Amino acid sequence: MIDLHYAPTPNGWKISIMLEELGLPYTVIPVNIRAGEQFRPEFLAISPNNRIPAIVDHVPADGGGPFSVFETGAILTYLAEKTGRFLPADMRGRSQALQWVMWQMGGLGPMLGQHGHFALYAAEKIPYAIERYRDEAARLYRVLDSQLGKTGAYVAGCDYSIADIACFPWAMTHKAQGFTLDDYPNIKRWYATVRARPQVQAGLAIGKFVKEPFDEEARKNMFGQAAKEMAGKR
Amino acid sequence: MIDLHYAPTPNGWKISIMLEELGLPYTVIPVNIRAGEQFRPEFLAISPNNRIPAIVDHVPADGGGPFSVFETGAILTYLAEKTGRFLPADMRGRSQALQWVMWQMGGLGPMLGQHGHFALYAAEKIPYAIERYRDEAARLYRVLDSQLGKTGAYVAGCDYSIADIACFPWAMTHKAQGFTLDDYPNIKRWYATVRARPQVQAGLAIGKFVKEPFDEEARKNMFGQAAKEMAGKR
Repeated sequence: MIDLHYAPTPNGWKISIMLEELGLPYTVIPVNIRAGEQFRPEFLAISPNNRIPAIVDHVPADGGGPFSVFETGAILTYLAEKTGRFLPADMRGRSQALQWVMWQMGGLGPMLGQHGHFALYAAEKIPYAIERYRDEAARLYRVLDSQLGKTGAYVAGCDYSIADIACFPWAMTHKAQGFTLDDYPNIKRWYATVRARPQVQAGLAIGKFVKEPFDEEARKNMFGQAAKEMAGKR
Repeated sequence: MIDLHYAPTPNGWKISIMLEELGLPYTVIPVNIRAGEQFRPEFLAISPNNRIPAIVDHVPADGGGPFSVFETGAILTYLAEKTGRFLPADMRGRSQALQWVMWQMGGLGPMLGQHGHFALYAAEKIPYAIERYRDEAARLYRVLDSQLGKTGAYVAGCDYSIADIACFPWAMTHKAQGFTLDDYPNIKRWYATVRARPQVQAGLAIGKFVKEPFDEEARKNMFGQAAKEMAGKR
């Protein structure tokens, strides 16, 4: 059995989708990030970066005690290697999938995250920052569109892989962030294909638990001030 | 022989250090990012994200034709798996190293990158953005300091790994970004140990070729406007 410490966010969905794709039994443990539950010591022991999602595998492949994994790219790789699925076995296919997982981890995720912050969440509207991240998000969408045009199928090649599972939940933010997939025809085609998978829909349906209101307290817990206060004055 | 498409930046140094650590023969191919050489079609064919570094392995393990790899986290993993070094073979050690590589790829790198942009490079000084990324950088330094306190040795455990090689060049930016390692005693200890490695020093010495001036043209090539103009009006 796997524990999934989770909130329904793009990063959370990566792992709920992966677990649904694998058909592995798992228990969802909601982490209310608006209420600051990510700062609890028992969560920190599993996720040293205070972020969701994280997993604890109670039946790891080596037969030893429970094993915890944080960072979505590492969780996807861990689960792919545990099951032998969604990560090609040959050297080239494997590396290509990991290259695009890394691209999602280092580019698409953080930069769409920054654009979402400045365009949608930040109380102060700062044109320089909004434009910087809108341009970078658009650039990244062009890179992904071009790659999907090359493969003609999935992000890392002919087969559905953890690269798709990593990118899809972030691509889901396009409308809220003011982008239209009509500008990116290859993404549009891929997006419809991935979204149609029953396992993806099942993953997205997980943990639609009631969200706390997005108030000042939530802003504080999600945008750093709470972590800053906990750290004191170092 | 491996081609290293390279500029002397934290991301570039990750791979020059890794290649020095491995003792693999390689050819440095400078990419002048201030002059916009990352937008050349021949570079794009190797690095679909228009970013340095990237490698082309002319003697890949499968005996086939040249194989190109982009994204530093994927290059480090590829080289570690090619040589069987700096990535533990056991499931737990391997996953722990990959977890911290992912943390560097998704957190430490992008967020120090944003802090550097707003605090040091952006023409406009925006207090909200500078504070946002300074706080996040400080939080990430605390996470790293705490982890290094736990292991008492290297980022992912007792052994030097690709997690150290990923984090070290970004930790090198601390002084320019206004941080002191006196605030992070475990990082300070680790930093001195890693910096003392002759292979690390050799990696950092690679390609100290003359930089273009940091003028308007460089700003355009490095901070997105050039990519935007090339993409036209989509």
